Amino acid sequence: MEKRIRAAVVGYGHIGKAAVEAIAENEDFELAGVVRRNSAAPQPRELSGVPIVSAVEDLGPIDVAILCAPTRSIPAMAEEYLNKGIPTVDSYDFHSDIPKVHARLNEVARKNGVASVMSAGWDPGSDSVIRALLLAMAPKGITYTNFGPGMSMGHSTAVKNMNGVKDALSLTIPTGTGIHRRMVYVVLEDGADGADVTARIKADAYFVNDETHVSIVESIEPLYNMAHGVLLERNGVSGIAHNQRMEFRMTINNPSLTAQILVACARAATRMEPGCYTMIELPMIKLLPGDPAEHIAHLV
Amino acid sequence: MEKRIRAAVVGYGHIGKAAVEAIAENEDFELAGVVRRNSAAPQPRELSGVPIVSAVEDLGPIDVAILCAPTRSIPAMAEEYLNKGIPTVDSYDFHSDIPKVHARLNEVARKNGVASVMSAGWDPGSDSVIRALLLAMAPKGITYTNFGPGMSMGHSTAVKNMNGVKDALSLTIPTGTGIHRRMVYVVLEDGADGADVTARIKADAYFVNDETHVSIVESIEPLYNMAHGVLLERNGVSGIAHNQRMEFRMTINNPSLTAQILVACARAATRMEPGCYTMIELPMIKLLPGDPAEHIAHLV
Repeated sequence: MEKRIRAAVVGYGHIGKAAVEAIAENEDFELAGVVRRNSAAPQPRELSGVPIVSAVEDLGPIDVAILCAPTRSIPAMAEEYLNKGIPTVDSYDFHSDIPKVHARLNEVARKNGVASVMSAGWDPGSDSVIRALLLAMAPKGITYTNFGPGMSMGHSTAVKNMNGVKDALSLTIPTGTGIHRRMVYVVLEDGADGADVTARIKADAYFVNDETHVSIVESIEPLYNMAHGVLLERNGVSGIAHNQRMEFRMTINNPSLTAQILVACARAATRMEPGCYTMIELPMIKLLPGDPAEHIAHLV
Repeated sequence: MEKRIRAAVVGYGHIGKAAVEAIAENEDFELAGVVRRNSAAPQPRELSGVPIVSAVEDLGPIDVAILCAPTRSIPAMAEEYLNKGIPTVDSYDFHSDIPKVHARLNEVARKNGVASVMSAGWDPGSDSVIRALLLAMAPKGITYTNFGPGMSMGHSTAVKNMNGVKDALSLTIPTGTGIHRRMVYVVLEDGADGADVTARIKADAYFVNDETHVSIVESIEPLYNMAHGVLLERNGVSGIAHNQRMEFRMTINNPSLTAQILVACARAATRMEPGCYTMIELPMIKLLPGDPAEHIAHLV
């Protein structure tokens, strides 16, 4: 067996935890350790025996850093790691800023002679690969991306931050052709008015364009479920043939899939020429462990 | 607009015809001409005005050759074109020989400083990309490839070549978990015995392992339909999360999709470094026309 890929997991939220799990299940990897802002705090039991540091240098030489920090902190963090000569992978998902971040990280990665894979996960990520493939297969037509059913972290956080809200959960329900319903579950703060909170949620920029239903509940905790899913549909034209119908559908554990794809892309980051890549810029074979000739024999 | 990609279509069966159609619909391409063994024979009306030659040199300089000849002739033909310094794309589909042909064409392509994309189409081809992606997303589990409903050229030809058979058509019907039923429609030669022909079909290597139903019909022509389809299913494990369910499904015009993918891969062949590539070795972005930055902005 080749030398294992020594990976650091940076950040330990849902995705960081799932990344540690995924590294243990991918035999060509070993976990160098976890980088956390407060490495001196009491650590969760499942990390016992795992080096936990606040500076990646304390982990010794590593082959790749899997950045599992909040999206807003990713661009600066990726740059910092690339400047240390460490390949990176992240699941950056501020769609409108992806081109700008891509251009910048590409420059920094090349300057440092390492590769960076950005916006790796399932959307952006594997869904992006499918969208690109469907476009190549049927260049004219419409692709609809239908998310859910599943929790939207962004929408949930938007509600949690509102006055009068103690806790909240927003589920994304696909209603077809890329249109979504929002099912919002809210725990009110003492004295807050449910009708008022409901009206403010429906008027919020996150919800105003979608069909939104608000339910007042006693507790969010019994509703928690990391399930999510997607349906990508394209009806397009290949050459002169219309009605080419294609769909990709999945129902998955969200953080576990994101983390597994991060690990596969971390593998790719150790193999690609210097530069920054989104998943549509990676050959799929680079995501897979083992002998490329075997994959050509068995997958093609 | 950049200079168009001048492509030659080599061979003019179902796929060659669809490739000519697809080139006309892909605006970054222009058809240099069609290469046919017998270029002096009367030509189909839709090729009026198209240069038809028996030697590719007679088309002047071309950027890529789209090889639409029968699979058995592809390895030697691809080598011949690569040795002329012409990038190639083909839909070679003898699965068991793919590694050997890949290694050989890789050597020849590198020697000549050009790229070759092999086994491009939908299976092998886009299905291969999906299988590789699903494996990266959920490394443990089973992927089933369910073909059809659609005509199988290989099975149809096997029956056509039997004694007592004037014409035949074999449909592939998926029954799940990668198992297929064969529906065979046969026109008997005068005096042939239907029961005898049926028994020989069911005993043939192409059919003996599958549930096979044979119908004796008057004519095949009214049954002809280029529709085909596939369902790729994977239920796998990402990290420690089981029951990650993914499926890709399509119903398509078969030669039109194959030809459109050949054109997309011809585009990639003009962009890749010298060597031979299957589709799992190509970044999806290389299949798409236009500005890569636009694709990163819109597809990722």
